[in-house]
Amino acid sequence: MTYCLSMLLDTGLVCLSDSRTNAGVDQVSTYRKTTVFEKAGERVMVMMTAGNLAATQSVISLLHEDIAAGPHTPNLMNCSTLYDAACLVGAAVRRVHERDGESLKQFAFDFHPAIILCGQLQGERPRLFNIYAAGNFIEATPETTYFQIGESKYGKPIIDRVIRRSSSLSEAVKCALVSMDSTIRSNLSVGLPLDLVIIKRDELKVARHLSIDHGNDYFRSISSGWGEALRQAFVQLPDHDWLGLNR
Amino acid sequence: MTYCLSMLLDTGLVCLSDSRTNAGVDQVSTYRKTTVFEKAGERVMVMMTAGNLAATQSVISLLHEDIAAGPHTPNLMNCSTLYDAACLVGAAVRRVHERDGESLKQFAFDFHPAIILCGQLQGERPRLFNIYAAGNFIEATPETTYFQIGESKYGKPIIDRVIRRSSSLSEAVKCALVSMDSTIRSNLSVGLPLDLVIIKRDELKVARHLSIDHGNDYFRSISSGWGEALRQAFVQLPDHDWLGLNR
Repeated sequence: MTYCLSMLLDTGLVCLSDSRTNAGVDQVSTYRKTTVFEKAGERVMVMMTAGNLAATQSVISLLHEDIAAGPHTPNLMNCSTLYDAACLVGAAVRRVHERDGESLKQFAFDFHPAIILCGQLQGERPRLFNIYAAGNFIEATPETTYFQIGESKYGKPIIDRVIRRSSSLSEAVKCALVSMDSTIRSNLSVGLPLDLVIIKRDELKVARHLSIDHGNDYFRSISSGWGEALRQAFVQLPDHDWLGLNR
Repeated sequence: MTYCLSMLLDTGLVCLSDSRTNAGVDQVSTYRKTTVFEKAGERVMVMMTAGNLAATQSVISLLHEDIAAGPHTPNLMNCSTLYDAACLVGAAVRRVHERDGESLKQFAFDFHPAIILCGQLQGERPRLFNIYAAGNFIEATPETTYFQIGESKYGKPIIDRVIRRSSSLSEAVKCALVSMDSTIRSNLSVGLPLDLVIIKRDELKVARHLSIDHGNDYFRSISSGWGEALRQAFVQLPDHDWLGLNR
């Protein structure tokens, strides 16, 4: 399993992914789920992937091959909008499905890649897309602050409670780490190291790209601090005797 | 969807279920998921169900028919251990599957009832079982404080953080309500009213059985208080500038 999260804020974008891939619990590996496409000052895009690793790796390879084919081939480095970039990624998903889909079906495997694509291209605002296995996609609207793919449920409630478009990038990073920590604790198939990418609005480049592992002091302080903070918050909630338990 | 939760503590049992059933978002109904089997002073059992309503209703009807058939038919009111009760429930699940399973498959429907059975019978400690669609089941061991069925993920992290076997019944009720509130906020198909059942160890009867709706002051205070408490806990977590965002 995988957990990837991207938040779209007034001041930029925050992307966080784990790096665990498993086929059963006895075949667990580390693969990065985050790929950056960047030409500083002109375009910056972050792509995060979940689902069949064979499918998502192929999608990324095809996208890189199109870039290598040069400026006459439509690709992520020459498209003019992030919408066009999402179309290219969706088309790459369909090419992989055309090649592998039927064989996967014969072996009773689903084809279920899930992709988040976000970033900013010159002349546009920052944008955030969620691309499905069928190659179609949705875009975050002003009411949507984030997209998740993979094991999304454990870490969702805290985002819904604290993140707004007006949240700062620091708050968003903190919330993303709390959300990831809750997920890691509840699902063995999501694990460190994490990939964190921060993009500041209108910089058109990656502001920070960090790998976060057990040794990261800040993640450790968030991880241990959140458990204690939750317990404190719980204790402070009202207790009532309307259950008659103390009578 | 449904969310049901049962916690097994040193001092007794706490069971909480929602009451929403849906087939698509335009066919939403209220059905109770909690059934009590009780002979005060001798036995008390709580059964909570998730999955196909047609299947779980049939399971409950069969169990009641066996009780109505009288003392010569093995049933929930004459079995001598909760393990035997779990076997009877599992057998009822299999009877429904034998009758409906093939037809469901023809219509491409899964047969996926999920059942929690807990309680205490004279001469035994309180026990907690999780019964699967195949009619087999597992029992909570000393390391297991709770079972969930249905939409379990949103509400799981808070239970893992705060509940131990030594938690009080009041703490468990509070935690169950927080867990349910997080689930209701994240999944439209889980909704009020809630059924809450509390069993005190060795009383061999239901201590409280409450229906909790929007008008319930305590649930309202938990629901609104938890959102604010979470935000406060989040704000108090350390902020760091190692991201260089403020440079």
